[in-house]
Amino acid sequence: MSDSRLATRAVHITGSAVDASVGLLQRHGGDVISFGMGAAGPDAIPGAALGELASELFDDPSNSALNYGPTEGERALRTALLSALAAWGQPASDESLLITSGGMQGLDLVCKMYLDPGDVVLTESPTYPNALVSIATYEARVVECPMDGDGLVVDAIPQLVESAGRAPKLIYAIPNHQNPTGVTLSGARRERLLDLARSYKSVILEDDPYGRLTYGEDAKPTLFELDRGMGAVVSVNTFSKVLAPGLRVGWVLAAPDVIERMVAARHGMDTCTNVLGQRLVAAFMADHGLVEHIVALRERYGRKLEAMLRELERNFGDVPGAEWTRPRGGFFVWLRLPGVVADELVTVALAHGVFFIPGSAFTTTSGFQDCLRLNFTYPSEREIAEGLARLRKAYTAQQGGRRQG
Amino acid sequence: MSDSRLATRAVHITGSAVDASVGLLQRHGGDVISFGMGAAGPDAIPGAALGELASELFDDPSNSALNYGPTEGERALRTALLSALAAWGQPASDESLLITSGGMQGLDLVCKMYLDPGDVVLTESPTYPNALVSIATYEARVVECPMDGDGLVVDAIPQLVESAGRAPKLIYAIPNHQNPTGVTLSGARRERLLDLARSYKSVILEDDPYGRLTYGEDAKPTLFELDRGMGAVVSVNTFSKVLAPGLRVGWVLAAPDVIERMVAARHGMDTCTNVLGQRLVAAFMADHGLVEHIVALRERYGRKLEAMLRELERNFGDVPGAEWTRPRGGFFVWLRLPGVVADELVTVALAHGVFFIPGSAFTTTSGFQDCLRLNFTYPSEREIAEGLARLRKAYTAQQGGRRQG
Repeated sequence: MSDSRLATRAVHITGSAVDASVGLLQRHGGDVISFGMGAAGPDAIPGAALGELASELFDDPSNSALNYGPTEGERALRTALLSALAAWGQPASDESLLITSGGMQGLDLVCKMYLDPGDVVLTESPTYPNALVSIATYEARVVECPMDGDGLVVDAIPQLVESAGRAPKLIYAIPNHQNPTGVTLSGARRERLLDLARSYKSVILEDDPYGRLTYGEDAKPTLFELDRGMGAVVSVNTFSKVLAPGLRVGWVLAAPDVIERMVAARHGMDTCTNVLGQRLVAAFMADHGLVEHIVALRERYGRKLEAMLRELERNFGDVPGAEWTRPRGGFFVWLRLPGVVADELVTVALAHGVFFIPGSAFTTTSGFQDCLRLNFTYPSEREIAEGLARLRKAYTAQQGGRRQG
Repeated sequence: MSDSRLATRAVHITGSAVDASVGLLQRHGGDVISFGMGAAGPDAIPGAALGELASELFDDPSNSALNYGPTEGERALRTALLSALAAWGQPASDESLLITSGGMQGLDLVCKMYLDPGDVVLTESPTYPNALVSIATYEARVVECPMDGDGLVVDAIPQLVESAGRAPKLIYAIPNHQNPTGVTLSGARRERLLDLARSYKSVILEDDPYGRLTYGEDAKPTLFELDRGMGAVVSVNTFSKVLAPGLRVGWVLAAPDVIERMVAARHGMDTCTNVLGQRLVAAFMADHGLVEHIVALRERYGRKLEAMLRELERNFGDVPGAEWTRPRGGFFVWLRLPGVVADELVTVALAHGVFFIPGSAFTTTSGFQDCLRLNFTYPSEREIAEGLARLRKAYTAQQGGRRQG
């Protein structure tokens, strides 16, 4: 069994930082403030409203919310979602929509559809680790492209493609409030990226969990929208960040023929997305409105982002070379502390009662060792302040130990 | 995109009978009695009890049942399940258990872990179509082995392996109340199959959704039990058939090192199983007892099986050559009507208000054209009687048309 592709690939990647870090957290116990997982704020999940809706779903002699459902997704959810997309100025047809078990399954489906061993996938650098796992299980080769304050440095792509010796089959991008950096791809670069993808006959895998979660600015048009149905973009989305991660409900937008083949593949993956979760999302959208809910989330998470940026300034403003991104949305801030080895700092930080994911988790290269991904949506504003004070103490302790060592 | 493995493989298979049939059903509308999907009986799902438990889960300010959970599964569910397994005489260690998004994801995970392109997978013939889809997406080669009344004809395997030119990487088997035939593998053949698998260094992928659902006899020891932790068997299981399919919660039992690598792969598939569903199953097991629930299911489904066998005799007893299996558990009866093309009969049957899955769905060969899979757990006893009467009318109409044609 040791000759399987999985044994050599997936573990190699996830065995690195995310798993090691979360393992550290689990073994640590104690009172830890977590800037780790990209989880929803506990008070941002409308549990009471969902609970009321659930009781209606259970009050049904046919128990249809607990039996199998269609592989393409529940009709009520599909209808509600198509309306919401239209309200966001992203109209889509019924044939271009597939409901998935969270956004991650959408990414896995796209990789499964498009990737053969040896194919090149161009990604942002740093990027989402679980996408790297999925790519690795199909034995494709990751080529990482640098980012700056305007997102992916699109002009660097031609040189990278030339070095790789082949055009990328997929270009994996999180254009809005990227994970882990929080950076958003500029409008000009979006058009340039689409042009490049078309010239390579590459498909852009657009991962957009955070697109609606802008704080203090409007959402940018997605790559899928900008492509206007030309088939250069497959868009992967989720209710995890805008409603409740534990329901594991997401969706994919793509050309109808691609969706049709994805439905076929789903039969061999998980049959269908959990029906109860889909019905809950649909009922919430009908009774409470997802658009309205997101307006409230933007307000709430926007305050948390402000708190994190303020407390970073307070605690790390005097650290030579320290720098961090200033996102306008999403879930994460990316902190760089020159000279730090974040894989080591995380252990010291846990001893000080604070947790983050080290930068090495977000790359297949040896880069970003001195970077930290900080989630600001899960902790409260008070915890953000206290957690960053603890992180500063951990940093000072580690640097002190280092200078003495 | 047309060069992807998926385009050529998965669609080829699912495009055949299951999809075509279900598509027919959806387009048909009207009052159709379904012997199609292997769904739970609507009145066999404890919706009211689950609803009460759900209201407790939603009454939680931390909303933890709606946020992300551990990839290996919720602690409460793992603990309850290990107790249930021990009660069934199938004790397992915590390290050998992974919670999955239904049994289908377990099958997909095992295929993902073990299969490389060109590998041979030996299967029962006929077998579960979605497993064939999963195997196909990893570009492995299916070798089908015949069955008889005692299940897989194990003694036919050596000759098949010799013809295939290589030992199977996996042997995929549903030993209990097999899908689609309802047949159970005899005790002697279980031991022989294990010996053979060990001699080939093959891993047996044991799919056991129906093992606890015996009607009028005791459950047989699983292959996983008989293997006694020697690593020759990976066991895939689900709560779909014994509690509620729509929750999409299942589990895998395997050697600890295999489970560890499966957890890593899950990061790149769907992150974790929906947390609400897992918590609901755990709470049901704690408050109501799964073992007790299954006792009630055996009674209820046993009566439906009796009804189906009785009504088959009533409606098809006079058809020359007609034969059907007489399962002692599970969800399905397998009916053979010599001279029938079931892919055509299904259209006529729909016009008569009854639905089944044609035999061609359950094979990669051209066999079983004259076979029908009949589910007896979803319809009521009254519907079973009425549905088989309609099926007989459809059969007579089609045969009449044929003789005239």
